[in-house]
Amino acid sequence: MDDDTATEILEATYRALCQHGYAALTVKDIAVEADQSKALIHYYYDSKENLFREFLDFLYERYTARILAVNGRTPRQALDSLLDTVLTERRPTPGANFRTALLEIKAQAPYNDAFRTQLAKFDTVLFDRLREIISAGIETGEFDSAVEPAVAAQFLVTAITGAHARHVATDRSIDQFSEAITRYVETHFRAETPAGATR
Amino acid sequence: MDDDTATEILEATYRALCQHGYAALTVKDIAVEADQSKALIHYYYDSKENLFREFLDFLYERYTARILAVNGRTPRQALDSLLDTVLTERRPTPGANFRTALLEIKAQAPYNDAFRTQLAKFDTVLFDRLREIISAGIETGEFDSAVEPAVAAQFLVTAITGAHARHVATDRSIDQFSEAITRYVETHFRAETPAGATR
Repeated sequence: MDDDTATEILEATYRALCQHGYAALTVKDIAVEADQSKALIHYYYDSKENLFREFLDFLYERYTARILAVNGRTPRQALDSLLDTVLTERRPTPGANFRTALLEIKAQAPYNDAFRTQLAKFDTVLFDRLREIISAGIETGEFDSAVEPAVAAQFLVTAITGAHARHVATDRSIDQFSEAITRYVETHFRAETPAGATR
Repeated sequence: MDDDTATEILEATYRALCQHGYAALTVKDIAVEADQSKALIHYYYDSKENLFREFLDFLYERYTARILAVNGRTPRQALDSLLDTVLTERRPTPGANFRTALLEIKAQAPYNDAFRTQLAKFDTVLFDRLREIISAGIETGEFDSAVEPAVAAQFLVTAITGAHARHVATDRSIDQFSEAITRYVETHFRAETPAGATR
């Protein structure tokens, strides 16, 4: 299999998905976006569902790379940077449409075992990274030792997921939802006397 | 218009939606569930979309009634009871399927102005009730006066929405997500010296 063509098809799937949404998306739309024939798409991926399984793997790899690349001089900065990464509307129009498409895929998860398994992996990679950063912050004394990393990380993943869903469902800016999340972190994570603080 | 028949159709829509999901649902499925003819459904509601607008109004009224009926001897009890109402899987199978269908509808919101407007109303009624209870708790001294009702309510609506979405997308029990929310409230809302506490 020609890896470049396969990747091009997945890139085209991303663009076509942002444009058409998941429910209305056809293999033909992807072919048009990829400037390839429908037959070629079918040659690489034998069904829309199979293509989407590969597509979710492809997204998962990019997502994991983004999440793991997040860093900062301190755990606090790493946490801010991670929240910024997952909560900012980076590319206003396509990004917003991508969130919509992802919510459509999430809503299909109960009907599709493969989607559900793959979506759970996105959920886990964010949870793990958050827990890791929170633990590191408690170790350096930057975060309050009363914060329980697993509970706080679980709560943050839930709130981040909710911010995306509310943004899609109500068309309100994600900023006000992310602000409440940032305020929670600022108010409840910061240690009273930051032992490891450098400022 | 015969209101009883109209209500029966909406009740049947609820059951058919839990069974088939939103994307796959047809007026015929609703007719079967209502034990009525497709023609009658069309007589009352001229399209699936129009039926769904009415259906969302119908759900909104029931939701509002449930949210406003929540009470407790103290604001703290009212808050627990409200979280319990919105986070518990009351009727395991149909309830879970209903959440899935609602997430499908949310994912359609960007393509449908009427859905978006109606979904924003569900969001607002929960936010308003939470803010009201939190304000009352600060007034009685049961909640920490450092808690800002609007920020905390915004954060809770976001987390509750996220708990539903993660539950649908990952098939994990909603309990672990609600536990993190309950822990947040327990840890961060309780006043150090509850002036109004009766126990």
